[in-house]
Amino acid sequence: MQRGKFITFEGSEGCGKSTQIQRFVAMLESKGIEVLQTREPGGTPVGEKIRHLLQFDADAADLTDESELLLFAASRAQLVRKVIQPALEAGKWVVADRFFDSTTVYQGVGRGLDVSSVKQINAFAVGSTEPDLTLLLDLDVSIGHSRAVEASGEVEDRMESNPMEFFESVRQGYLQLAKESPERIAVIDASASIDEVTEEINSMFSERLGALTS
Amino acid sequence: MQRGKFITFEGSEGCGKSTQIQRFVAMLESKGIEVLQTREPGGTPVGEKIRHLLQFDADAADLTDESELLLFAASRAQLVRKVIQPALEAGKWVVADRFFDSTTVYQGVGRGLDVSSVKQINAFAVGSTEPDLTLLLDLDVSIGHSRAVEASGEVEDRMESNPMEFFESVRQGYLQLAKESPERIAVIDASASIDEVTEEINSMFSERLGALTS
Repeated sequence: MQRGKFITFEGSEGCGKSTQIQRFVAMLESKGIEVLQTREPGGTPVGEKIRHLLQFDADAADLTDESELLLFAASRAQLVRKVIQPALEAGKWVVADRFFDSTTVYQGVGRGLDVSSVKQINAFAVGSTEPDLTLLLDLDVSIGHSRAVEASGEVEDRMESNPMEFFESVRQGYLQLAKESPERIAVIDASASIDEVTEEINSMFSERLGALTS
Repeated sequence: MQRGKFITFEGSEGCGKSTQIQRFVAMLESKGIEVLQTREPGGTPVGEKIRHLLQFDADAADLTDESELLLFAASRAQLVRKVIQPALEAGKWVVADRFFDSTTVYQGVGRGLDVSSVKQINAFAVGSTEPDLTLLLDLDVSIGHSRAVEASGEVEDRMESNPMEFFESVRQGYLQLAKESPERIAVIDASASIDEVTEEINSMFSERLGALTS
């Protein structure tokens, strides 16, 4: 049984990740590939409790940056070992809505935690399960924010109520990671139309992993 | 305002920690010292939810070693910044029932995780808030286990239902830490009677920090 491929989508709010993930998964499935989708935090029983604590619990308003990071990592450690790794070993492909790059940029760069410590904790959490390809949907922060507010109405969760400079540092953090790992991370211009972004993703995919599925 | 002192108690199950902590705190208070007691995991609203997840939630049976460690660290990061650090700055002394040494030995040594990674995560979680003195109640594992079962009746939580070799590796892990940090960690022979152990703790305390309170 050939190990499946692990593909992650990253990008800040309003970048159109959800829509593009649905289209990407449909494209893979049309080639006969069995796909498992994951999102973070969550995806396991323990992870869903952590997700709730992070995003909707009143006590989370009091959460320190360090504790927030460690809770994300705990949820991810569980997801990797109980869901992602077994699926890959069974030959399925895994498409993840956010993975450890989110932690590096949101908690590390965005909140000003020591980035090398954050990367060490990420590495501990995921062990040997790293993405084969990461599609980074890059977008100007002001466009992203207005798209996100439009889409969600007035409801903003704890992450989305942060100020704009935070999101600008997140964007720059992502671009920095892409510079450090160009062989893993592909930057996609997410300011184009939905169809154009899909086309760019598909062409990037063909270039990097397409030979596996043709 | 002089910063308070931070004292932690460590030791495996049945070592008599709870009783000795009560006596130790009473001794400090009799000298006019204001004392705050903490326990782990827990001690903050978020920490108590993590504690519940770790110790009593049915989903915890499925918890990976890595996720368990990260949840302990998340609870501790919150406790240190919201409770311990502010108390020390206000001149109170803090007496903790378990701190980061527990994570190093239970999750690191006991579960076979990479100890240097565990120490890095501990350091990230606590920042600059390290104990001034750690009292390690050391006890033969078989004595400890029968004392613990006696005390708690038939109820064993997830930690206490581990096999004996686990507790032996925990004991050895603690002794190894004491060897590495003799200036911080004092080893107390917990096989003696309760009164004798109290006496040994008090004399160790006088030797190391007593000058501060006389």
